[in-house]
This record gives sequence, structure tokens and C-alpha cells, in this order.
Amino acid sequence: MPSILNRRIVLASRPHGAPVPANFRLEELAIPAIGSGEVLLRALYLSLDPYMRGRMSDAPSYAPPVEVGAVMVGGTVSRVEASQHGDYAVGDLVVNFGGWQNYSTSDGTGLQKLGALASPSHALGVLGMPGFTAYMGLLEIGQPKAGETVVVAAATGAVGAIVGQIAKIKGCRVVGIAGGAEKCAYAVNELGFDACIDHRASDFAEQLAAACAKGIDVYYENVGGAVFDAVLPLLNTAARVPLCGLISQYNATSLPAGPDRLSMLMGTLLKKRIRMQGFIIWDDFGHRYGEFFVAMSQWIKEGKIKYREDIVQGLENAPQAFIGLLEGKNTGKLVVKVAE
Amino acid sequence: MPSILNRRIVLASRPHGAPVPANFRLEELAIPAIGSGEVLLRALYLSLDPYMRGRMSDAPSYAPPVEVGAVMVGGTVSRVEASQHGDYAVGDLVVNFGGWQNYSTSDGTGLQKLGALASPSHALGVLGMPGFTAYMGLLEIGQPKAGETVVVAAATGAVGAIVGQIAKIKGCRVVGIAGGAEKCAYAVNELGFDACIDHRASDFAEQLAAACAKGIDVYYENVGGAVFDAVLPLLNTAARVPLCGLISQYNATSLPAGPDRLSMLMGTLLKKRIRMQGFIIWDDFGHRYGEFFVAMSQWIKEGKIKYREDIVQGLENAPQAFIGLLEGKNTGKLVVKVAE
Repeated sequence: MPSILNRRIVLASRPHGAPVPANFRLEELAIPAIGSGEVLLRALYLSLDPYMRGRMSDAPSYAPPVEVGAVMVGGTVSRVEASQHGDYAVGDLVVNFGGWQNYSTSDGTGLQKLGALASPSHALGVLGMPGFTAYMGLLEIGQPKAGETVVVAAATGAVGAIVGQIAKIKGCRVVGIAGGAEKCAYAVNELGFDACIDHRASDFAEQLAAACAKGIDVYYENVGGAVFDAVLPLLNTAARVPLCGLISQYNATSLPAGPDRLSMLMGTLLKKRIRMQGFIIWDDFGHRYGEFFVAMSQWIKEGKIKYREDIVQGLENAPQAFIGLLEGKNTGKLVVKVAE
Repeated sequence: MPSILNRRIVLASRPHGAPVPANFRLEELAIPAIGSGEVLLRALYLSLDPYMRGRMSDAPSYAPPVEVGAVMVGGTVSRVEASQHGDYAVGDLVVNFGGWQNYSTSDGTGLQKLGALASPSHALGVLGMPGFTAYMGLLEIGQPKAGETVVVAAATGAVGAIVGQIAKIKGCRVVGIAGGAEKCAYAVNELGFDACIDHRASDFAEQLAAACAKGIDVYYENVGGAVFDAVLPLLNTAARVPLCGLISQYNATSLPAGPDRLSMLMGTLLKKRIRMQGFIIWDDFGHRYGEFFVAMSQWIKEGKIKYREDIVQGLENAPQAFIGLLEGKNTGKLVVKVAE
């Protein structure tokens, strides 16, 4: 019988700017033993998400950084391989925060049993953190009303694609922003957005203004930078800006050159009486996951929400896939298939 | 019988930077005649407020600018001098948006009859727009909870003084920011703030940090600029920032030199999941004036809200008083007594 090892990917060094493969290291260790009251979990799917870039740095943030030498954090769908815990049996599927590794252990804290899903991986996307993030940020902070114009950046990403489709369900005009003609075509033809503008186009700002003839009532922010610069002058009076992510800034090593527009932004929020609000899904809305799950499951069943995954095979390919995620290379939810 | 004229102050020219006396012009005209369904109103008190600086410029804002040559806008308490309107009798006191002049006419639109007040001028302050602004901005957007730390800038101004006292009623620790030792002493000794920091002190940021040992949960923003720069790093997770005014910026003619901190501000709002929201009192909350009036009247009756006015005599002194307001020279609500 061959010896089986636990493979894991640790943070080898902190990135300066964009992460590179050398910031990660693949290690092999013995599979951890479990004690009384614990379960051994084998990861089937690992979620890759932009927030992980923040955890690689030691700048102050809402969550502690991953220590150099420690396993990278991340949400997983796992199967119970061994159990000394009364609530879990071998073969049960759970969602856990297992990290970038094949095996993890748990005393049950933070485990969530999986119900019947079309694919277990959906628990990491449309029915998990990204879908929940889209739902609460748009509906609670964005408060879209029928007939309003909703703009969402990173429109074909795991969060943006859901935001736009929920906004369509609510009767809004939906304009996406994405990188490249292919993604834009997908947003319009498959996801049903009214328009999608390529932020790489030289006349991006003009195209966005033309697509938002009545201005922007809700801007769901995932990106920041040049995309936000084009959005800002189009924001309507009483607009809402749920601040979910700023992926264009995550690799920045210094502030851009001046002038300093901080006071200009605040002046715009004041004059147009705009609400801008950052949120972290579990901290702000964790108690409402059940409500989200019911609503989203129903929409999926009715065919109102379409969902695409970008599945990468093999834990060893996670670093390269994550680097690509920050470069905007994926369409749909990026997931690593770790085991069958 | 001496002929009586209407004196009014018009915008002579748009200011470049801080307003100067030459931007205003005193004119004398015949008292306007009224027709059927109209009333003639004589101003007793004129309110001077920071937002008027915005109306002197033609930069895009939430309200149209005052045209050059037109009378300056402003809220007034007036007495009905002649009436051809069934709802108003000679001698009635009303609140109206009469502007910087002795006499105005109205068809009843925008008039509000005055109830019994300690002084009619209170309808322009603690029971009027500034008090209402303090109340809704703090309670609705700020949502202070007992035990939290609330910081308010322009702490002895017409809005700030009320914000701090309401926050005390709600059980918060209240730290004011004001210009000079005299104002700070007034905020602590008379208004009952827990502390008040002089923003002119060389170690202002350090003093503010020391006074907010548990960070800042609600920052009621009236000022911007260097004051906000000291507040920003102290904001707690899930802090709320009602954005009421940016008086330090109103005379700015260009953006400050870089680096550009716009993305830094958005990153902070995201990581700390902060809500920043601009508001314009009548547009956002006009329908709730009655609720405010009842609550504030009760607090005044119970001695829980103290209120100071800075009363300037004579319409002709309004420009100089307004210039002083923007320089932070007044303590309490600035009002011009126009007539007995």
C-alpha cells in the first residue's frame, strides 16, 4: 500500500506588487491524525478569490495575514474521510475553510453540511460566499429599484455575474464592465445584461457614459482605479455604492501621483448625497445566509440565475490560477478541483 | 411719511477662493406689491449658513447657483405685513426662504407658520434646518449606540453643538473638534462634551488619538481637509460617517498636491467596512421634520439641549458676518437680526 501524504501550498514569501510563483511553495507532510471529537477532511474543491491577495500581505486589514510558511487560506468543499465526531460520518460532504491543501482536520467549528446541489462546487460560488456577497451587497446596500441603472464592474467574475442577474430580476437596467470583447459578449448574450463595456477600450469612459444615458443609480464596486474614475462623474443624486472589492489596487505598492482627489470624492458624495459603504460578507451579514440560500436556490431552479465555473485541475496549479485571477484571466467562478 | 424701501443684498460677483465684501452689493428698491393670494413678508431674522458658499459658485452642485445680480438665498423668520391670502393674517410669524432682504412676497408656497418658541430665531437653528440636520444625520446615518465614541467637527457650530448633545443623550462618549481654546472650553463646560480638541494645535492628531482611545465609531463630518486626515486612521471597523459639510474645502480653488489618496480612502472604507454617506437634509429627510420637532422640543424643555446664538445686528452686516462664519469666527448659530 503506497504511503499517502498531505500536499499543501504555503506562503513562501510576501509578494511585492503582483504575486509570482516563487511566493508559493508546495510541501508534502504526513496526513494529520485526528483525536476524539474531530474529523479528517479531504478537500474536493478549493475556491480561489481576490481577497486572498490581501491575506498575503502584512499591511493592516480586516483579517490577520497568512504567516510566511503557513498554509494559504481558502474555502473548500471537503469529504469526511475519518470521523470521531458524532455529527459527521465518513462520506459526508461539508463546506469548510480548509485552505490550499488536500487534508485538514476539524472539531466541527465552522463546518457546514452540504445539501443537495447540482455540483458540490456550487457551495463555493453561486450558493456560497461570492453569491451571498453579490446578494447582500446589491440588495441591502445598493437597494436597487425597478427602472434604475445598475453598473457592476468585474461583470463576468464570480460576484459580478450574480450581481447583474439579480439586478435584472429586480427590473433594473444593467450595464457591466469587463475586460475584453469575449467577456462582454458573454455578459450580454448569456447573462442577459443590457450592455457590457470593455474597460480596455480607449474610449471606455465615453462608451460607459453612452450606455448609462440616465446616469448610474447603483454602482457595485469590485475594481477601483480607472474603472471607478469613469463611473464617478456618472453617479446620480442619491446613488448607492456597495464597496465589495478593489481588485485593481491589490497589487499596488504606492499611491498614484497627485493631485490628491480625496476631498473631491468626499465633495461628490456630499453634493450628490451618495452612500458608499464597504462590507465584509460574513461580518456584516452572516446571520442572513439562510435567507440568501432560499432565494438563490429558487432563482437557480427557475432558470433566472445562470452560473459558470472556471475549474482548474490539481492543487499544484492553484498558484498560477490565482495569479491569473488577479490579472482578470478567468470568466466565472474560479475553483480548483483537488480530488474526485 | 418717509418712504420705506426694500434693502437687499445681491451677489455682485462670484468669489475666487474666500468671499470678500466686494462679492456682495447692497441695493435699495421699492417694496414689492402683492396681488390676490399673496402675502408681503418682512424679515425679522436671517440665517447664515455654510452651504451659502456653494450657491455663490456656478460649479455643478445639488442646487442651482445664485445668479450674479440676484438676491442671496437664505432662510428667514418673517412677519406678515400685508395679506391677500386666506391662511395668513397681518402679524403672523412664518419661516420662509426669504433671502438676504427686508421684504419678500409669497403665494404661500414654502411658508410655515411658527408655533410658540422661546425666540422666533430658534426656528432657524435648534428647531430649524441646522438642528434637523444634526438630528437626522447623527441618528439615521450615524446610528450611535450607547458606549460608542462619536466625534463631531465644527463642534460649537450650529450643527455640531446639537450633534454632540444628542450623542450624549444617547449615551455615547463625545469628542468635539473646534478652533481655539475658548470654543473647546465651551464644548466641554457648557455643552457637556467629554473632550474637545483644538484643531489648531500642532499636536492635534496626537491629542485626538488620545481622546479617542477606543477609536471612533461615528464621525459626523462638517469640515474635511486636515481634520478628516486626523480622523481617518482612528475610524473603527463598521464606523459610520455622515457627510454633512466640508467647510474647509468650500473656498478651495484647486485640488491639493498628490499623492492621490482617493484609492486609499476607498480601501479604508472597504477594509473597515465603513459607511460614508452624504445627505441634504430636506431632500433626504424632509418628510420627517415633524418627528424631529417633537423630539427636539421635548429635549429643550427638559434642559437636555443647550443652545447659543451669535446674533449680528442689521442686514448690512450680513456679508462680513458670513465671511467670518467661513473663517470659523462664530460660536453657536449665526443669525442676522434684520428687524424688530
